[in-house]
Amino acid sequence: MPKIVDHDERRLELVDATWRIIARQGLEGATMREIAMEAGFANGALKPYFPTKDTLLEFAFSHVFNRTNQRITQVTAGKSGLEALRAFCLEVLPLDEERVNEARIVIPFWQRAVNDPKKAAIHQQSMDEWLASIRRFLREARGSGDVSAAVDDSALAGLLLNMLLGAQIEAALAPEGKLDFGHAEQLEGYLLLLKGS
Amino acid sequence: MPKIVDHDERRLELVDATWRIIARQGLEGATMREIAMEAGFANGALKPYFPTKDTLLEFAFSHVFNRTNQRITQVTAGKSGLEALRAFCLEVLPLDEERVNEARIVIPFWQRAVNDPKKAAIHQQSMDEWLASIRRFLREARGSGDVSAAVDDSALAGLLLNMLLGAQIEAALAPEGKLDFGHAEQLEGYLLLLKGS
Repeated sequence: MPKIVDHDERRLELVDATWRIIARQGLEGATMREIAMEAGFANGALKPYFPTKDTLLEFAFSHVFNRTNQRITQVTAGKSGLEALRAFCLEVLPLDEERVNEARIVIPFWQRAVNDPKKAAIHQQSMDEWLASIRRFLREARGSGDVSAAVDDSALAGLLLNMLLGAQIEAALAPEGKLDFGHAEQLEGYLLLLKGS
Repeated sequence: MPKIVDHDERRLELVDATWRIIARQGLEGATMREIAMEAGFANGALKPYFPTKDTLLEFAFSHVFNRTNQRITQVTAGKSGLEALRAFCLEVLPLDEERVNEARIVIPFWQRAVNDPKKAAIHQQSMDEWLASIRRFLREARGSGDVSAAVDDSALAGLLLNMLLGAQIEAALAPEGKLDFGHAEQLEGYLLLLKGS
């Protein structure tokens, strides 16, 4: 009986291997050969899935973003306003080891995106979606009287989104194993400021 | 008469050449050979200044940070509290072309720092200094009654610093020539929130 290969699953195995290699030795050190070895692929068997390191990196980043968004959908389900905003931010912030590792992936991706409009567009699409969610939650919170700060929602949303991005840098550059950066306290501080009290 | 060479100046010429090359073709595309050519150095004449690309990158980043800090010292001179905090942030935010270009340098540096404790320590030292400045300005502003928000200064300072970092990513990944990201409005929003009004 011929072996049935689940190609989607094999792609995800490659993504996992990529993360482990990048986390260990950085983006430059991660050769396609090493990623193939780490994933248990024969050298050359990787090409049909990802012809270049760049296509693999784009897929890996999209996968991180999709996974984050799936978690966001789950944790914000049935919530609105500040409660939804808090749940959203707690999912995006690098508060545990898994998400600190995701931050370590996203920085090499950003670095590539500085000189690659296609990658920059993938990033921008994600940011547009997140900004739209944040603004919707703020609007709901205004509607229910939970936000009375005399600052327009556009500035409030941009400020928060940039804080969420900056937190990724802080976490990714910290010594291995460090997990507490005060990000949860910064988020609670922001939410308290919104109340205008 | 022998030609007198100003080695510090030559180092800065190399840093400028590095920036132009990285801005044009990214960190991977910037070979030592191309940087030497861009700076008008003979191939090989670069080694006495920077034996490796890594030493050049560290020097270039330290130079950006020092230059930013010199500007900060100038613009905050004679100021305190929220006025000093605003001046500090306006210097750090990527509000003009020069500072958007600096953001394009800092992201490759961060990417290297994810897997290089020495570079991470250079970054951390900068962040510690900035955080200390922000906290001093907040303390002064509390003292003069300009900040009454019921959030502790540690969370307020961390929130602002992360916003300043996130703004670098937004600017560096934007299409060439884009300069208005609403960062100044986000800063004014933050300062207004501090007043607790």
